[in-house]
Amino acid sequence: MSKRRKKIGLPPGSVIYTGNRKVEKIVIHYFQYEEKYLKEKIFDNHGKIVFHQSPNEKVNWYDIRGIHDTALIEQIGSAFDIHPLILEDVSNIHQRPKFEEYEKGIFIIIRALVFDKEKLKITTEQVALYFRNGFVVTFQETESDLFEFVRKRIQNGKGRIRQRGTDYLVYSLLDVIVDNYFLVLEDIEVEIELLEEKVLENQDTSNKSEIHRLKKELLVMRKTIAPLREAIGHFAKTDSSFVEENTAVFIRDLYDHTIQVMDAVESFRDLLNGLQDLFISEVSFKMNQVIQVLTIVSTVFIPLTFLAGIYGMNFEHMPELHWKYGYFVLLGLMVTIFVGLMIYFKRKKWI
Amino acid sequence: MSKRRKKIGLPPGSVIYTGNRKVEKIVIHYFQYEEKYLKEKIFDNHGKIVFHQSPNEKVNWYDIRGIHDTALIEQIGSAFDIHPLILEDVSNIHQRPKFEEYEKGIFIIIRALVFDKEKLKITTEQVALYFRNGFVVTFQETESDLFEFVRKRIQNGKGRIRQRGTDYLVYSLLDVIVDNYFLVLEDIEVEIELLEEKVLENQDTSNKSEIHRLKKELLVMRKTIAPLREAIGHFAKTDSSFVEENTAVFIRDLYDHTIQVMDAVESFRDLLNGLQDLFISEVSFKMNQVIQVLTIVSTVFIPLTFLAGIYGMNFEHMPELHWKYGYFVLLGLMVTIFVGLMIYFKRKKWI
Amino acid sequence: MSKRRKKIGLPPGSVIYTGNRKVEKIVIHYFQYEEKYLKEKIFDNHGKIVFHQSPNEKVNWYDIRGIHDTALIEQIGSAFDIHPLILEDVSNIHQRPKFEEYEKGIFIIIRALVFDKEKLKITTEQVALYFRNGFVVTFQETESDLFEFVRKRIQNGKGRIRQRGTDYLVYSLLDVIVDNYFLVLEDIEVEIELLEEKVLENQDTSNKSEIHRLKKELLVMRKTIAPLREAIGHFAKTDSSFVEENTAVFIRDLYDHTIQVMDAVESFRDLLNGLQDLFISEVSFKMNQVIQVLTIVSTVFIPLTFLAGIYGMNFEHMPELHWKYGYFVLLGLMVTIFVGLMIYFKRKKWI
Amino acid sequence: MSKRRKKIGLPPGSVIYTGNRKVEKIVIHYFQYEEKYLKEKIFDNHGKIVFHQSPNEKVNWYDIRGIHDTALIEQIGSAFDIHPLILEDVSNIHQRPKFEEYEKGIFIIIRALVFDKEKLKITTEQVALYFRNGFVVTFQETESDLFEFVRKRIQNGKGRIRQRGTDYLVYSLLDVIVDNYFLVLEDIEVEIELLEEKVLENQDTSNKSEIHRLKKELLVMRKTIAPLREAIGHFAKTDSSFVEENTAVFIRDLYDHTIQVMDAVESFRDLLNGLQDLFISEVSFKMNQVIQVLTIVSTVFIPLTFLAGIYGMNFEHMPELHWKYGYFVLLGLMVTIFVGLMIYFKRKKWI
Amino acid sequence: MSKRRKKIGLPPGSVIYTGNRKVEKIVIHYFQYEEKYLKEKIFDNHGKIVFHQSPNEKVNWYDIRGIHDTALIEQIGSAFDIHPLILEDVSNIHQRPKFEEYEKGIFIIIRALVFDKEKLKITTEQVALYFRNGFVVTFQETESDLFEFVRKRIQNGKGRIRQRGTDYLVYSLLDVIVDNYFLVLEDIEVEIELLEEKVLENQDTSNKSEIHRLKKELLVMRKTIAPLREAIGHFAKTDSSFVEENTAVFIRDLYDHTIQVMDAVESFRDLLNGLQDLFISEVSFKMNQVIQVLTIVSTVFIPLTFLAGIYGMNFEHMPELHWKYGYFVLLGLMVTIFVGLMIYFKRKKWI
Repeated sequence: MSKRRKKIGLPPGSVIYTGNRKVEKIVIHYFQYEEKYLKEKIFDNHGKIVFHQSPNEKVNWYDIRGIHDTALIEQIGSAFDIHPLILEDVSNIHQRPKFEEYEKGIFIIIRALVFDKEKLKITTEQVALYFRNGFVVTFQETESDLFEFVRKRIQNGKGRIRQRGTDYLVYSLLDVIVDNYFLVLEDIEVEIELLEEKVLENQDTSNKSEIHRLKKELLVMRKTIAPLREAIGHFAKTDSSFVEENTAVFIRDLYDHTIQVMDAVESFRDLLNGLQDLFISEVSFKMNQVIQVLTIVSTVFIPLTFLAGIYGMNFEHMPELHWKYGYFVLLGLMVTIFVGLMIYFKRKKWI
Repeated sequence: MSKRRKKIGLPPGSVIYTGNRKVEKIVIHYFQYEEKYLKEKIFDNHGKIVFHQSPNEKVNWYDIRGIHDTALIEQIGSAFDIHPLILEDVSNIHQRPKFEEYEKGIFIIIRALVFDKEKLKITTEQVALYFRNGFVVTFQETESDLFEFVRKRIQNGKGRIRQRGTDYLVYSLLDVIVDNYFLVLEDIEVEIELLEEKVLENQDTSNKSEIHRLKKELLVMRKTIAPLREAIGHFAKTDSSFVEENTAVFIRDLYDHTIQVMDAVESFRDLLNGLQDLFISEVSFKMNQVIQVLTIVSTVFIPLTFLAGIYGMNFEHMPELHWKYGYFVLLGLMVTIFVGLMIYFKRKKWI
Repeated sequence: MSKRRKKIGLPPGSVIYTGNRKVEKIVIHYFQYEEKYLKEKIFDNHGKIVFHQSPNEKVNWYDIRGIHDTALIEQIGSAFDIHPLILEDVSNIHQRPKFEEYEKGIFIIIRALVFDKEKLKITTEQVALYFRNGFVVTFQETESDLFEFVRKRIQNGKGRIRQRGTDYLVYSLLDVIVDNYFLVLEDIEVEIELLEEKVLENQDTSNKSEIHRLKKELLVMRKTIAPLREAIGHFAKTDSSFVEENTAVFIRDLYDHTIQVMDAVESFRDLLNGLQDLFISEVSFKMNQVIQVLTIVSTVFIPLTFLAGIYGMNFEHMPELHWKYGYFVLLGLMVTIFVGLMIYFKRKKWI
Repeated sequence: MSKRRKKIGLPPGSVIYTGNRKVEKIVIHYFQYEEKYLKEKIFDNHGKIVFHQSPNEKVNWYDIRGIHDTALIEQIGSAFDIHPLILEDVSNIHQRPKFEEYEKGIFIIIRALVFDKEKLKITTEQVALYFRNGFVVTFQETESDLFEFVRKRIQNGKGRIRQRGTDYLVYSLLDVIVDNYFLVLEDIEVEIELLEEKVLENQDTSNKSEIHRLKKELLVMRKTIAPLREAIGHFAKTDSSFVEENTAVFIRDLYDHTIQVMDAVESFRDLLNGLQDLFISEVSFKMNQVIQVLTIVSTVFIPLTFLAGIYGMNFEHMPELHWKYGYFVLLGLMVTIFVGLMIYFKRKKWI
Repeated sequence: MSKRRKKIGLPPGSVIYTGNRKVEKIVIHYFQYEEKYLKEKIFDNHGKIVFHQSPNEKVNWYDIRGIHDTALIEQIGSAFDIHPLILEDVSNIHQRPKFEEYEKGIFIIIRALVFDKEKLKITTEQVALYFRNGFVVTFQETESDLFEFVRKRIQNGKGRIRQRGTDYLVYSLLDVIVDNYFLVLEDIEVEIELLEEKVLENQDTSNKSEIHRLKKELLVMRKTIAPLREAIGHFAKTDSSFVEENTAVFIRDLYDHTIQVMDAVESFRDLLNGLQDLFISEVSFKMNQVIQVLTIVSTVFIPLTFLAGIYGMNFEHMPELHWKYGYFVLLGLMVTIFVGLMIYFKRKKWI
């Protein structure tokens, strides 16, 4: 959040990049397609691009990878007549996922997730989409190509995508990101199962901090998905003219997926809480056993040592010391006490 | 979830079987009936079937057991004109229960539960139902015949089932699955009661992991039933033309059952949480007692041993050692200390 | 729930008694009344009864005590033209309280509670009520007369009851059962207060399981009352023609009572949770004290015993042993150490 | 709740006093006022009062202090034509706060709170208000004059109160009681802050039960205020003809206050829960320290004592005993062990 | 809350300052502006000000810093025709954030937050805003200039602010305060991360109280922001004539920010709870280790000391003492026991 401090006091709608991932070279990946027509271009030097909205029949998709160049953002904004608050949100990477209908287009923010299994860490990347009939603009923070699969489908002309409009393209892009959540969930599920085994075997003392860290990551995930669910819900129910009716059934399906992800996150949280309880009861259970050992040993030998101490005293007049079998009688007594206590502990199920 | 990884990047509506339970031979069980008419067929070799929708008066029910053959799914899809997203959901076995109205039919997903008492494990099987006036298609993952009871009722012509349409058949199928939940609940209730006795008798250290496992299973159950409740709720309130008005009262009844199941799951969870608290307090209580024993023994014998140690020293000038009754006086003192401490512990209710 | 297993597979609407409280002799208690007219009959042998609905002016109330005779239930069902699902619910004693409007009448399920103070156990009995203008049928599982007070009011002609219709009668019957909840609450409150004293005095180790059991009973109670509240809420808001407008104010009052009961149950749960926390902190607090005693005794006497051990060694050359006042110097040192540690513990507030 | 038992079985609307605070002499304090007119009377002997409703222009306020005389309640009821259920509620002091619109008037129940700082105990007193255009009747359980401030404002003619109708009077009465909640909150806040200091200083073992008691009192408070908030909410939104439009803004303000009180109660509960967690972790932290001391002392001196024990043995052939510097070598060894362990514990941060 | 006590009994609408921050000199900062026109004045001596509402085209903004002078508040109230309840709320600094529409204007309460990093303490300052077309009045409790940034924007004429009306000014003022919340959140996030490191390193025993204090501060923050979110939500949806339609999109953006703040507060609470659990499990884990050390040392040396004690006894007839290698045999036995126990502990993973 370090750049936020600079932003305070600026008028609303100021386009300020608040992240710290400067892409080497901003890439703009451009598609223009219809059912039987496809044009693709990659602009490296963005200075020379002319952005244009096509008539309704064609879909123009500008995929901008790298958003630190605020001049570019503003150029796009004025080319497509985008509301300043949208441009502000595009460049401020600390947004909640949301769905907003503006007069001239629809604006969606979603966050892509990557789970680093080594560090048990989820990183998120903000993706912003803006579209109306004729064009879609997507803003990604890094060069990583989240939309590779969609691009291939457009190139191949497979599936429905080339026959449909911008709303279906947006749906497909969101769908890819949400599908990716399931991979993250799978990875986390595997981690949780590993952790569960570890906790039950109790080999390692790092379990407790691992549980803590996974819980933190699920918090991140929930913070990302809870508002997304809401946003997709609005998307599914919108009556905007930018969304065709026969796309709604797909968005509803997408909505189901976000609910499913949310369900999984919640039940993982429950699992981790259960695991934590298990861990704590394992620890206290083990402590119990340790203390039982201590108690048994102490309870057995401290009295015996006392007895030995008695006959180690140097009084002149201690008749027992002079008995012939005094020593053996005492040894016998000690064995009796020892056996008696053992039976007692056995009965109490301490041994 | 292992096949999900493969699915990413495929266009929506792709029919991919994501499970791993390949049925030896897919069985298609076909019924055609009216109040006074019944035709039943079992197809082993599904290649030769001609699927047909009957006019409204007759009910055609295709029960497909085994869904790994995606070609078959797609064949059924095109025969009955089913939306591709439905076909995708049918073959993807990681669906939440849901109720969806499409233009041309109603699609329901429900999960059947089986509780394995040995392993304290609930397994779920996804069942998909699609119907409109004239026909019902059901998709089960395995060969196990969940719908045996309904089939018998159709064969006998008992009850209302032969006089009603497809909506009532669907209701009956759902009803059988929900009824089965009660059996699972009964089994779990028995397990919980057993566990409760065990925890109170404290014989076994496996209790804590058993509580943990039962809680996990209830999580699975809740994840299955919470969305089902919602789905059946929509079903009960639908004004679809595929559901007759006089069937609604039965669906409402079914809805009551899902609420009842959900209530039971929630109260079992509460019971298990209570049990866990009880277990932890039992453990800490027992630890308390163990430590009391340790403390009593140590507090009594350590000072006495010290006293004995004093008179075990080898100083040349220790007048007490030469007293005639020194030894007996000391023994008397030790007994006094012992008795005094015992009375003290008695008063403190430690003994 | 043991009979439920048998029920699976039967068509909906099958009347099967799922309880195990077979009443010796089923009693049917019949009232017919108007403001200035009263007829009362008790049928022992139910075979000969002719059930009849009266014209609107008169109230006919059939109170059936004992529901294991499914033939009788079905006979009543056909006599009064009751929906088969209602008959199923009447004989299935594992219902949630509910309020259902059917075309031809209103059906209510409520559960009466009895608290057994000895065993700290709540038992519930299902009561079903069905009414429309002209008649009321009530089904109780056992012979215990829950409705004695209402019956007396009808016989005496006191209060409003004789001037009103079936809706008011039903209200009165529900009111008696809900009033009874308050008695159960009072009993539980007394138990909780006793428990609280016990926990603070800490005399008894049975507290923890008693808390657990009371919590379980409150779970039962909540499971009974939460849906009832909802049901009475529907009853209060119904615009059914079977409920007169001037009765609504009474039902609203009844609704307030169920909310009050629910509030009390919730706050008892909070109290018990608080009690449990208190118990656990009492236990850990006591453990703390025990361990302090252990630590003080050990910390004081173990070093002293070590010192005595030193001078109990048999080395030939130990100059201190030959000092004239060696013994007394050592005793003085020991007293100094003892006093020093005592002051230390005093400062640390351990003593 | 002790009189409730008697009430069961009585017809609804029966006026039975369920409290136990019999006021010595019931006082009825009567006001009749308009903007420029004021009549005030105090009736000691209520037998001779003639209750009368004034025409709309004048406000008649009967403040009844003491409600154990059910005959009086019924007399008032018939004088003002009050619904029997209201009279029942007035005399039954175990009501939830509520707001009820009847055809002929509005009925409000609210509970005044008093916090006894000595006993950390909140006591509640039920206040019932019934009004329509022209008159207000208030019922207080005890002689304590909750409404003194309002009375003074009427007498002085200050503020708006004399220019407004019965609705504003009722608002003013409620406002005084709700304002009083803030005082209780302040007192509780002070208690919590004191407790917090105590817990951090850990001087006193009574903290845990004090936390428990304060939590109980907050439960009482929440039980009182949660339904009140709802009731005032209804009051603020009512479109009853008994409430003038320009009074609504005041009631909305009152509603804000109840929300604020509720917020405070909730955050106090959170604070107390936090305090309890803190207390428990303080206790376990202290236990930790105590056990560390025990472990350090034992770990240091038990092995040393063992060494001393070795050379206290009486074997004939123990060469070390005859070494010239055997004793001093051993002492040196012991010091080395001692210092070594100290360094070890220092490193482990136990000292 | 100390002045609240005085307020009780006063009529509603009484203007009483309940805070204790008397500003040295009350400052009234006045702006009058249009797109191309700006007048600014600072009044030190407020006695001579003439407040006036401008015609719709111009915006008049009176920013009052210092609210302890109730006479001034009342003067402003009558100058702008403000409802007495608003004036009461302005001077009573214990208000919940709220949004209220009155007939003649809109009243908003918001609280500014300051986080003192030294003391880990959040302080709040109440800001009240009242506006309608033509003028805005803001009331701040202290001299600190919260609105500096807005003022500069007005002076520079940058951004939209000079072209818009009072609603946009109010939005800008709220926006600055809400933006400031993010700074507080950042500071708290840093604190939490520091704490997390500390807990994992376990250097410091002050962690537990620090967690407790941060949780308290988050409670304060939540209490401030939860009602604000609601208030801004109402603001965003208002159809008041005082708010222009094209401002709504900005307020909706502001609403998103409050949700984001609330999300962060909630997830910080979750983080702190997780941290607390981690801390407790760290403490109990460390206790475990300490007790293991104690148990190992005791279990090893107590039996050995006992053995040494045996042969320290002074019985006349102890044959072992006279064996030639008795001493060495015993030493060997002791070493064997020692090694055996070490292997045992190694296997149990205690070492």
